[in-house]
Amino acid sequence: MSPLYGAVEAGGTKFICAVGTGPDDLRAQIRIDTDTPQITLGQTCTFFRDAIAEHGPLAAVGVGCFGPIDLDRTSPTYGSITSTPKPGWANTDIVGHLSDALGLPVGFDTDVNTAALGEARWGAGAGLHSLLYLTIGTGIGGGAVADGCILHGLMHPEMGHIPVPHDRDRDPYEGCCPYHGDCLEGLASGPALLDRWGTPADRLPADHDAWSLEATYLGSALATFILTLSPQRILLGGGVMEQQHLFPRVRSETARILRGYL
Amino acid sequence: MSPLYGAVEAGGTKFICAVGTGPDDLRAQIRIDTDTPQITLGQTCTFFRDAIAEHGPLAAVGVGCFGPIDLDRTSPTYGSITSTPKPGWANTDIVGHLSDALGLPVGFDTDVNTAALGEARWGAGAGLHSLLYLTIGTGIGGGAVADGCILHGLMHPEMGHIPVPHDRDRDPYEGCCPYHGDCLEGLASGPALLDRWGTPADRLPADHDAWSLEATYLGSALATFILTLSPQRILLGGGVMEQQHLFPRVRSETARILRGYL
Repeated sequence: MSPLYGAVEAGGTKFICAVGTGPDDLRAQIRIDTDTPQITLGQTCTFFRDAIAEHGPLAAVGVGCFGPIDLDRTSPTYGSITSTPKPGWANTDIVGHLSDALGLPVGFDTDVNTAALGEARWGAGAGLHSLLYLTIGTGIGGGAVADGCILHGLMHPEMGHIPVPHDRDRDPYEGCCPYHGDCLEGLASGPALLDRWGTPADRLPADHDAWSLEATYLGSALATFILTLSPQRILLGGGVMEQQHLFPRVRSETARILRGYL
Repeated sequence: MSPLYGAVEAGGTKFICAVGTGPDDLRAQIRIDTDTPQITLGQTCTFFRDAIAEHGPLAAVGVGCFGPIDLDRTSPTYGSITSTPKPGWANTDIVGHLSDALGLPVGFDTDVNTAALGEARWGAGAGLHSLLYLTIGTGIGGGAVADGCILHGLMHPEMGHIPVPHDRDRDPYEGCCPYHGDCLEGLASGPALLDRWGTPADRLPADHDAWSLEATYLGSALATFILTLSPQRILLGGGVMEQQHLFPRVRSETARILRGYL
């Protein structure tokens, strides 16, 4: 019999918790609004205790968490959310709280890294050894799987903040990233679209100039990631990508920028 | 007793071959000018046969090779140089030639990937689990080690060709990459410096405008690689980096572009 695991998608708006042997066999699931750490983590632990009582013991709990988070296992703050602007959540020891309360091993990584791993194990990247998962929404973030494992390094990638070519004649918008101004996230995230055009992304018509510009920025970023990581597949998610017409434009801009090099 | 290995640094100008148990214990070494594949690979095999006769059997031979090369083990052309402009070398089966002639297992990767691995095992990255090796010279290339292994993917990274912000008011030069014009290599390689300023890099004085511009392009690239790969250390090599004053400038530009984000 496959062991039962607990899973948490810990976001700034909601925590989604589940228990099961895999994505096709979920025995219990809950959505918890993100409140203070004490309330939200308390509700999370209550859910898992109830699920254990009903379905049996869990082998471990895995957490994909909003960040930035500390993933350095040698660090005294390993397993914590570090410097988030989300009120009350800075310096919250997620791994410590869950492992103390539940007495279970806790796996911990960023939301985008765990999304990438999930897609590689069970989703659109099943059977591949390398892929990149990119979310384009309120923020832009990326997670990479290489040789079947999440790509870490010194900390974790922050792919949303790469510099991208910015033609100010075509796009005089300064960008909205509080750190970098016109990095990728500053130019191509949902808030950048709203700020530049005065209209939220989901209400910009498909023939609006916004989308060819958006495709250029995302195409430039994808070219960069392809040249740097060489993933077998790239998966695009997030609110901005819900505009279905954007996919073929991004694909075509990526190819145009690479100019047949690969 | 540690086993003896053969090593080949296969370049477009020269092949450096060696036999030893590690970099501090080389028993034999030779430099072979790169001529036709038949002549150069013939001399390479002769060197290894002579070394075996004198020093004993080799466990395997490792090759770091100029490219582009085919690293897909499921491909019929695995182990070959593919589409190089170097006359006579396109579609040369390096692994097949050496393993047939020597009857030994042959390890094969790009020159920059093997340089990254060598630095991680024995060099400036010893003890680290992740690093990036970047060479800035006639071309720009990078190799990454993550979790102690060379980062591959669909093929191999081509980090020299990433798009970088190009302020045409500051730098009207169009770039010299035959594929992309003003990609990183097109703006910051040795040939780009020569083409833009009419003077080779090693004769441009330290106070020349060339160097602050060069530092900006390399800083932008390093910021991108840090945000994408999060390496513990970045090693810079290649002819252009022989200008010692360039290191601190690149470091400072990288930090300026990241703006304390990490």
